[in-house]
Amino acid sequence: MQVEILATGDELLTGQVVDTNSPWLMDRLWDLGLMVRRKTLVADDRDDLRAALLETTARADLVVMSGGMGPTEDDLTSECVAAVLGVPLERHEPSIELLRERFRKLGRTLTPNNEKQAWFPRGAEVIPNRWGSAPGFTAQVGRGRVVCLPGVPVEYRGLCDEWVLPHVRARLGEVPSAGLVKLFAVPESHADHAMRPVMDDPANAGVRFGYRAHWPEVHVKWTVPGPDAAARAARIRERVLGIFGEQVFGEGKDELPDLVVARLAARGERVALGESCTGGMVAELLTSVPGASAVLDLGVVAYANAAKEQVLGVPAELLAAHGAVSEAVARALAEGARRTASAAWGVGITGIAGPSGGTPEKPVGTVHLAVAGPSGTEAVARAYRGDRDRVRRQAAYEALNLLRLALR
Amino acid sequence: MQVEILATGDELLTGQVVDTNSPWLMDRLWDLGLMVRRKTLVADDRDDLRAALLETTARADLVVMSGGMGPTEDDLTSECVAAVLGVPLERHEPSIELLRERFRKLGRTLTPNNEKQAWFPRGAEVIPNRWGSAPGFTAQVGRGRVVCLPGVPVEYRGLCDEWVLPHVRARLGEVPSAGLVKLFAVPESHADHAMRPVMDDPANAGVRFGYRAHWPEVHVKWTVPGPDAAARAARIRERVLGIFGEQVFGEGKDELPDLVVARLAARGERVALGESCTGGMVAELLTSVPGASAVLDLGVVAYANAAKEQVLGVPAELLAAHGAVSEAVARALAEGARRTASAAWGVGITGIAGPSGGTPEKPVGTVHLAVAGPSGTEAVARAYRGDRDRVRRQAAYEALNLLRLALR
Repeated sequence: MQVEILATGDELLTGQVVDTNSPWLMDRLWDLGLMVRRKTLVADDRDDLRAALLETTARADLVVMSGGMGPTEDDLTSECVAAVLGVPLERHEPSIELLRERFRKLGRTLTPNNEKQAWFPRGAEVIPNRWGSAPGFTAQVGRGRVVCLPGVPVEYRGLCDEWVLPHVRARLGEVPSAGLVKLFAVPESHADHAMRPVMDDPANAGVRFGYRAHWPEVHVKWTVPGPDAAARAARIRERVLGIFGEQVFGEGKDELPDLVVARLAARGERVALGESCTGGMVAELLTSVPGASAVLDLGVVAYANAAKEQVLGVPAELLAAHGAVSEAVARALAEGARRTASAAWGVGITGIAGPSGGTPEKPVGTVHLAVAGPSGTEAVARAYRGDRDRVRRQAAYEALNLLRLALR
Repeated sequence: MQVEILATGDELLTGQVVDTNSPWLMDRLWDLGLMVRRKTLVADDRDDLRAALLETTARADLVVMSGGMGPTEDDLTSECVAAVLGVPLERHEPSIELLRERFRKLGRTLTPNNEKQAWFPRGAEVIPNRWGSAPGFTAQVGRGRVVCLPGVPVEYRGLCDEWVLPHVRARLGEVPSAGLVKLFAVPESHADHAMRPVMDDPANAGVRFGYRAHWPEVHVKWTVPGPDAAARAARIRERVLGIFGEQVFGEGKDELPDLVVARLAARGERVALGESCTGGMVAELLTSVPGASAVLDLGVVAYANAAKEQVLGVPAELLAAHGAVSEAVARALAEGARRTASAAWGVGITGIAGPSGGTPEKPVGTVHLAVAGPSGTEAVARAYRGDRDRVRRQAAYEALNLLRLALR
């Protein structure tokens, strides 16, 4: 089954909007064992759009098209599909009714412009859109079936989940089983090396393995075809979990901040943070999770030494003796945060994010992290590479990962 | 002049990598008055690549192609361009020398695989690459000139700046003058309404105006063609600055966190933060700026009421009387942060980011912000729309903008 993606919109060709819909769909098609053959972006131009429709439908079995479905003059998709098919546009009464109802609820009146969204090429199948005003539609054009969707991400993704992916699954008949584990702080080359015995195992012939670098995470994926796909995928999962052990922080849609919040919530415990070089990034990541207020008491961004002393009780002598970037200060930040908030857990981070501030003894990228808990304080030292943003991001995720491990 | 973009790489068609190079180049071409006509992504497949090269060069004057320039078997660009031209590949000695030198510095030996990167279609012009090992090249294919670049972003962008954009400028002869102002918290529709008199002014005939929604910012752009472009663009800039006044926070590459850090540094003043619903996002944004340590003393993420009382001295009676999400508490957070850190400025933010926690009186999106300074405390109340992330992001940028205005 050949699939192509076609998107229309001037805004996609002027750099105004980055198309994130296509990678999203490609990722899901890949899980079904399909690689999109070609992706084409064209402007809101009748000639270009008609030409692209003819070319893509001549090559592919399915063309997923998006954009050009709105009420303005630039929205040309229905018109161009009709032209390519040699059929007129027809008013679709049920869609008009839904539009009218939608506008009534918004306290607005349906204008002839907006009615345009309910005109489709004769013979096309209309696909209702629960997320917005423009329905999608699908029609056979030459060899290929074209399905036309709005470009608004929530509508595009909703209609893909509801129509495109089930359609592809039905046409494929048998779909592969996919698996995904997420590793923390494992370079892709190490992951690949460790995976070799699994990948080269004759029992896994026909399985496609792959990596996604969602830095500082690496994701290991596999797609298993065939009738016993689910059982084979489950066996691969067991082996992968065995190989990477504690380096696996999650599977599927798991995210590190969510896992940490969930583990704390399950234990009925709270954490407090003493951040220096990460400047609030750990707090920001944790509080991005709904319900974080139940587990985060206090985060302190103690940039200045005075703040470290005053708010978190880091002794001035310690700062003088070891310097602000030191294991001793990381420990004192973690313990100070824990004590100040009367929390079960405290996290301390201090380091040199750069670009300036590095010395030969403590170059840019030097970071000390500590986790204080009911049974004491653990500290680690790291020498990260990269620019300010990379150093900070590595340190923040490392802190979450240390907390995850401490919460086992 | 017709320009198309062509990129190759399986990773672009499996959702593994999002192509950010193309929007970057499109944006720069748009500033030269050009809209890219079409963009095509194809897999690392000889047939697809040759077909795409023939199609794009038949339509366009310039095809900017990327990917497939590395040393592996999947890297097919040179080979396919040679096939389309009907010429052999030739070894380019100066590039071999540079590769050898590069590998010597890395302590590695040049393998025959790596030498592949120095073979080009006979007659192609080689474009040296100062950012990586694979040089680019350019050749005339039918109607179109194709320029082939590595896909690695730093190399792609470097070679675009050094070769592609100067080439386009030279071919265009006269290039337009462009301008860009950045507005905070102005809906695009309002910006468009306010810009109407400028856009409809006969003096600005031929000028292309546009908007970029970099939410919660809106950017207003204009591109002026013709011989007196620079003077006309300067006059438009004056009018736009006059129309939007204090709503303009910057121009060109200005970013809000950088501006706030720079203003504080110029005044030799410091700020301290008392964040609740933004959970450290304001601290994270400020500390993302190199040199932020000179202006940020302390950031406190006071999620729990106890933390608000204990660390920032927010009176318990105030919390009881007004609730944690109230103007009174925003003021107390700002003043408490300022006092605790002995800073010139204090910022306080408290609100309901959602998804839960809303009430009929204080629905999700309710946020109170305050800035405390040498001449008192100013507070504002906001009712933001959107999900947790949007509410937090709006509130964090609003806090930075309030601080910017206070620092005038």
